[in-house]
Amino acid sequence: MADRPDTPILDRIAVPADMKPLSDRELEQLAQEVRAETISAVSETGGHLGAGLGVVELTVALHAVFDAPKDRIVWDVGHQCYPHKILTGRRDRIRTLRCEGGLSGFTKRSESPFDPFGAGHSSTSISAALGFSVARDLGGAPEHGIGDAVAVIGDGSMSAGMAFEAMNNAGHLNRRLFVILNDNDMSIAPPVGALSSYLSRLYAEEPFQELKAAAKGAVSLLPAPFQEGARRAKEMVKSMTVGGTLFEELGFSYVGPIDGHDMDSLLSVLRTVHERATGPMLIHVITKKGKGYAPAEAARDRGHATAKFDVPTGKQHKAPSNAPSYTSIFGKELTRLAAEDDKVCAVTAAMPDGTGLNLMAERYPSRCFDVGIAEQHGVTFAAALAAGGMKPFCAMYSTFLQRGYDQVVHDVAVQRLPVRFAIDRAGLVGADGATHAGSFDIAYLANLPDIVLMAAADEAELMHMVATAHSINDRPSAFRYPRGEGVGVELPEQGEVLQIGKGRMIREGARVAILSFGTRLSEAEAAAEALTARGISPTVADARFAKPLDRDMILSLAENHEALITIEEGAIGGFGSHVAQLLAEEGVFDTGLKYRSMVLPDTFIDHASPARMYEDAKLSAKDIEAKVLDVLGVAQIGEKRA
Amino acid sequence: MADRPDTPILDRIAVPADMKPLSDRELEQLAQEVRAETISAVSETGGHLGAGLGVVELTVALHAVFDAPKDRIVWDVGHQCYPHKILTGRRDRIRTLRCEGGLSGFTKRSESPFDPFGAGHSSTSISAALGFSVARDLGGAPEHGIGDAVAVIGDGSMSAGMAFEAMNNAGHLNRRLFVILNDNDMSIAPPVGALSSYLSRLYAEEPFQELKAAAKGAVSLLPAPFQEGARRAKEMVKSMTVGGTLFEELGFSYVGPIDGHDMDSLLSVLRTVHERATGPMLIHVITKKGKGYAPAEAARDRGHATAKFDVPTGKQHKAPSNAPSYTSIFGKELTRLAAEDDKVCAVTAAMPDGTGLNLMAERYPSRCFDVGIAEQHGVTFAAALAAGGMKPFCAMYSTFLQRGYDQVVHDVAVQRLPVRFAIDRAGLVGADGATHAGSFDIAYLANLPDIVLMAAADEAELMHMVATAHSINDRPSAFRYPRGEGVGVELPEQGEVLQIGKGRMIREGARVAILSFGTRLSEAEAAAEALTARGISPTVADARFAKPLDRDMILSLAENHEALITIEEGAIGGFGSHVAQLLAEEGVFDTGLKYRSMVLPDTFIDHASPARMYEDAKLSAKDIEAKVLDVLGVAQIGEKRA
Repeated sequence: MADRPDTPILDRIAVPADMKPLSDRELEQLAQEVRAETISAVSETGGHLGAGLGVVELTVALHAVFDAPKDRIVWDVGHQCYPHKILTGRRDRIRTLRCEGGLSGFTKRSESPFDPFGAGHSSTSISAALGFSVARDLGGAPEHGIGDAVAVIGDGSMSAGMAFEAMNNAGHLNRRLFVILNDNDMSIAPPVGALSSYLSRLYAEEPFQELKAAAKGAVSLLPAPFQEGARRAKEMVKSMTVGGTLFEELGFSYVGPIDGHDMDSLLSVLRTVHERATGPMLIHVITKKGKGYAPAEAARDRGHATAKFDVPTGKQHKAPSNAPSYTSIFGKELTRLAAEDDKVCAVTAAMPDGTGLNLMAERYPSRCFDVGIAEQHGVTFAAALAAGGMKPFCAMYSTFLQRGYDQVVHDVAVQRLPVRFAIDRAGLVGADGATHAGSFDIAYLANLPDIVLMAAADEAELMHMVATAHSINDRPSAFRYPRGEGVGVELPEQGEVLQIGKGRMIREGARVAILSFGTRLSEAEAAAEALTARGISPTVADARFAKPLDRDMILSLAENHEALITIEEGAIGGFGSHVAQLLAEEGVFDTGLKYRSMVLPDTFIDHASPARMYEDAKLSAKDIEAKVLDVLGVAQIGEKRA
Repeated sequence: MADRPDTPILDRIAVPADMKPLSDRELEQLAQEVRAETISAVSETGGHLGAGLGVVELTVALHAVFDAPKDRIVWDVGHQCYPHKILTGRRDRIRTLRCEGGLSGFTKRSESPFDPFGAGHSSTSISAALGFSVARDLGGAPEHGIGDAVAVIGDGSMSAGMAFEAMNNAGHLNRRLFVILNDNDMSIAPPVGALSSYLSRLYAEEPFQELKAAAKGAVSLLPAPFQEGARRAKEMVKSMTVGGTLFEELGFSYVGPIDGHDMDSLLSVLRTVHERATGPMLIHVITKKGKGYAPAEAARDRGHATAKFDVPTGKQHKAPSNAPSYTSIFGKELTRLAAEDDKVCAVTAAMPDGTGLNLMAERYPSRCFDVGIAEQHGVTFAAALAAGGMKPFCAMYSTFLQRGYDQVVHDVAVQRLPVRFAIDRAGLVGADGATHAGSFDIAYLANLPDIVLMAAADEAELMHMVATAHSINDRPSAFRYPRGEGVGVELPEQGEVLQIGKGRMIREGARVAILSFGTRLSEAEAAAEALTARGISPTVADARFAKPLDRDMILSLAENHEALITIEEGAIGGFGSHVAQLLAEEGVFDTGLKYRSMVLPDTFIDHASPARMYEDAKLSAKDIEAKVLDVLGVAQIGEKRA
């Protein structure tokens, strides 16, 4: 509680309506108070700092001019929504951000009526705002009414195909609709064209001048070769805003660019468009990520994501790591293979650091491709690289690979092309919560003909699976691994190629066999230890492959045990379903087998630590233990599990 | 064989290399012969006619100038590839198009080395061509070599987000790459800008003049309100090609527009760009769909898809229908609901006729939305319509809904919004083959928390499910149904709201229960009839719901039968997997149950009639019969099934 910022105006704001009596000068001061409060809160919780700091003035101006929650303000992705949360009745919980039981790090419908449409993944906001504006015009919610619809979307998000699709449709439907392009590249589009000049003269008093000098230098802070990928996305947006002609052709009126940290400009433009707009309107706002907090402004990522930190210095309090992350293990093993084999190449969709491809990119930039927020294109591009004789690794988070699912089916699997999918953030991911959970990839990949699907039980296994995927050159393959640190096993010099479709025995026991697919293995082992102390010594095996299944091992486990329990970090339809299908087809159930499949529950699990989320999911060691006792009919002490 | 066209030049062309000695005049004549051959072939097979006729000259010119298969020519979607097939060693099989065992209606890697990248879904060609150009520069296929990469993409396909993502990435990567924009809207972009004029002067001899007069009128042939959607997509493309500035900003050189039916222009431009291009190049070609065949040119859809027909008159030989199509049943029932409830609205992604939404659009145009080839946007737009108090039906083919999968998860399911997914073309689809199979939706939807997932067993059931989905206003729902005609059952006046999660008994029998999800029900009934004749009288039930499951019915079937067999028109991971999970959790397998789950096999099934494809899939009545006999241990006459 020490050193909380002094926030006299903010203290009077419970909801945005309280801002209406404020003068422009008070709104300006309010913005500074919101900025201080945001910094203070994130210093205590960690989280996404830079994006929010960049839109403090914009957030205040939007809430001063528009009338939420009747007006629907939709924040794209949601990283930038902390100031919005502070101003919309959630200040009292702002220091619970991303903590268990606390506020989501994104907008979330169930959290507040001021979050009309939740997010997490990018580039959905224009589609959502358009839906609200159409619903309004169709009388969708007469009891409450819908006012204006406003999408706030970053320049990076705008570069995704989905945003383009939404703009195309919005221009056609021609409803009153506001799209705020939050351009935080700090570069300014080239001199605006005739039409844009006309619109700027029409709407805005002060021509935007300030940031032109800052245009250079920003891109060079990124590591090669990804600075090119990032710059490309920016240039695309720039090209779209040169004179706003494309937006105009799409049926949007264009205003901008305007200084997103100049409250007078923002209020003036927003008030004018609010008063006059009849159709879709694009307002191009230039902001600075991390604005107003020196350590964030100076950071390479502009304070994008941070651990808890010391406010005066910006020094982050990071817990020391006990083991290398899966992500870094993947990056290193891939780099090793790239050194050996010049056909190895890699594709990421705007996640070079997050996927560990930055490690390979440092040494082999010409074989690493950041395609931007463009999973659809990225997957098909990788498919063609494979068709062209390369050995592509397509590294994406499980949750984002969903964006390229049709391309996985249609361009990779149907054509049986040897794309290697490196699926990071598989399973429950922690603070990012339900929107980012990697719950479905086992199910949506394992039923694709001929694919090889693996899950790593630990970081050494991940090394083997990278090497194994590299060796599979006649069909698609995928390997999944979780967010975070490995379990600390000893690492081999290099990954070894595994035998396709063969699992491994971890411990031989009796009565019950636990067959794990992925990193629940350590929980299965812990459960086995606990059970051994109770006189039951389970067999534990690591399936390694969900496809092809290790038929011999599975049938042997079934034959030699009273019970067989599978466990995986995924929803129903995946590994356990394939095992059940095998057992059914082989007639194993005909004569009886105590078979259970432990999967993610049929619910979206809110953010918490991954360990706590897995407790919620009932996939922890104690849950496995309880399942074994239950299936064997052994009485349990304490709670009876369903 | 009668009335085959006279094709003296074409008769000398076995592969494109044979075209190299031809003079420009001979190439022009070759194009006319290819056109005649295309018309003749499709008159015998049916198929996609208009698109191919529009690119006859372009196809000849491309093969005259480029050097396939070393040069990779990638046809987007593939509807237009028949002339390409005729010229690339497949003329002898061209009259087997889309027939069982015959040529695919799309490009297909396994069919010919001249098809470097297969298609079926739209907007993948630029990603693919870019992948080839990068693979070439990285030395991906040294044994054969990769020459140039050429994508041929229609203006409609170009409007999808995926194409935009690929253009953005291609401009950045700056490899030699050709994108042919096949603009068959018959409208011409407004006078080209300075840069484009410069490029046109540089490359092309003759300014394009001809088609300006034809610009009007084309759009008005479409039914309202979809003409707006179609026009929008065209205008977007036009806006991109006004002076080619956007393409230029994206790093492409732009040439065009040029007359796609003027062989001299095509050859001149293609030869010039082939000689001079160093980076990515967009060539804007104006073509006329159905060109050169009067009945196609005069048709509303420009001969897009046709049954077998009489060449002189264009009269199609359509088999009389025995029952209304599922698609039309859906369209009618939805229209009825829209009349009753002004909150009902509908979204389609460029498939108004294919999904039956045209029926509703005729009466309620303001509540029908064609978003273009934009499934990602379409799903999220529908989600926001639901959040705004509307009752949206999102009507998409199963295979295309894969394009919006992340949006189904992230925007609909996580937010528990009541979007109703009307999933047409569920299961195997016939002549369109593996790329269009609706195999995976049960698996990828049934594991989403809280969704209601139904499959219609016949057309009356579909009516009930439309009404049921309409009534579900607190969570997402989906209902799937196949392509083609219903089974001819008597139709009720209107659909009735079904009890959620309750199946229905079809016939009570003994020993074995067959539990069907979807239109395999009639096969199950036929199998039951056949089995009854052999002294086994199975119980048959229609599950109706994959989620929530009818627990009581399933457990009762398991309890009262020796064997339980599920059947569905989908891949593993779906209905049967959910049933197995229930049976496992309830301990039914502990004491033994002859359980089997009949699903699509683990392979992509080539085009044939749907009935034949289901025979290949071993999901026909005789397969069910055999499965029952096998599981009951009854000796079978003839073949033993695995």
